[in-house]
Amino acid sequence: MTETWLPSLITATPQEGFELAITLSRRGVKYTQPDVEVLKQLRPNYANSAEALTAASQVVAINFQTVAAANGYWRR
Amino acid sequence: MTETWLPSLITATPQEGFELAITLSRRGVKYTQPDVEVLKQLRPNYANSAEALTAASQVVAINFQTVAAANGYWRR
Amino acid sequence: MTETWLPSLITATPQEGFELAITLSRRGVKYTQPDVEVLKQLRPNYANSAEALTAASQVVAINFQTVAAANGYWRR
Amino acid sequence: MTETWLPSLITATPQEGFELAITLSRRGVKYTQPDVEVLKQLRPNYANSAEALTAASQVVAINFQTVAAANGYWRR
Amino acid sequence: MTETWLPSLITATPQEGFELAITLSRRGVKYTQPDVEVLKQLRPNYANSAEALTAASQVVAINFQTVAAANGYWRR
Amino acid sequence: MTETWLPSLITATPQEGFELAITLSRRGVKYTQPDVEVLKQLRPNYANSAEALTAASQVVAINFQTVAAANGYWRR
Repeated sequence: MTETWLPSLITATPQEGFELAITLSRRGVKYTQPDVEVLKQLRPNYANSAEALTAASQVVAINFQTVAAANGYWRR
Repeated sequence: MTETWLPSLITATPQEGFELAITLSRRGVKYTQPDVEVLKQLRPNYANSAEALTAASQVVAINFQTVAAANGYWRR
Repeated sequence: MTETWLPSLITATPQEGFELAITLSRRGVKYTQPDVEVLKQLRPNYANSAEALTAASQVVAINFQTVAAANGYWRR
Repeated sequence: MTETWLPSLITATPQEGFELAITLSRRGVKYTQPDVEVLKQLRPNYANSAEALTAASQVVAINFQTVAAANGYWRR
Repeated sequence: MTETWLPSLITATPQEGFELAITLSRRGVKYTQPDVEVLKQLRPNYANSAEALTAASQVVAINFQTVAAANGYWRR
Repeated sequence: MTETWLPSLITATPQEGFELAITLSRRGVKYTQPDVEVLKQLRPNYANSAEALTAASQVVAINFQTVAAANGYWRR
């Protein structure tokens, strides 16, 4: 990908950091399946399965660990 | 989401930190499936499957690592 | 939950730390399914599946990372 | 459990540390299913499934992270 | 493998670090299944399963933790 | 096991570190299933399943975190 989508891991607030973790999680999917049409077709099944939603939340949690560490946990 | 739900990772006690980890885990689900009605429908299956409950507990454990590190493990 | 169940992550020994990790793992389940009767019904299937037992052990391992770090790995 | 099985996370060598990680992984199972007879019955299925063996290796890897950090990665 | 594919974990930007995490994830697969033809055959199923894509994104997230730490989170 | 297979976590290069992570992942399997014949029989199914290959890559990623930290990420 030539487009810049991740200039920095630094965010102003924990919540923005959590949203960056979501972006990272989606990008991890997109690098494997770049076809947006296929991703759209997968979405209904996906978003209606408790197991799939928990798995998605786990990837976000792992990426949030990285973003939070990068930001010194927004301690001050 | 424009609403502020995560102003800080700092909590007064480990237990409040654990509860914040649960909030983070649920938010990870909600960003993927924002429809509260769908989430309610998924809940009965979910909360009655040992596998799903263990998976949920795992996401909480990962988020608790982040919150605990942010709080210096509440050492003093 | 108003009851205090997690006053501290500090334990006297690694073994007590491991047992605290088990407590954290079970609490992660209980926050999602607070009904003790349902949890009891799930137990037989659960405790007789190698896959479920490994998954449970994984959650304990993740929580033990947190407790061990909090205790400076009980190095002295 | 009243028996002492985890007096320390410190080991003389990385290999002993890896073996301690295996012990921790098995203990995580045993706290959930203490009946040794049941564990023996589960073993044949378990040890003959590639998926189950990979899952077991993952729990060992997570516990090894903890033991390795405790030992300063045996750097000297 | 005699070829050098990983001379360093240091990258100029977070985005290049994320792409290195993807490379690491694919290499983890390739060491287990070096036959490129087999990998190609697996790809259609793989890239069309929400579960498999989330699992792939999780491996990327874990490798990104390593690359980000190596780079001091690209803080300056 | 009396044989010494893990004298150190220190490697000369990141790539050797990644290969050590693969060794650790395989050893994690071998401690559970020491019978090499059984492991050989499992291999064809294993190496032809996208899900199993991703799971294997995940264990490698976790072990690589440990090896990379042990080596100070090979920063110099």
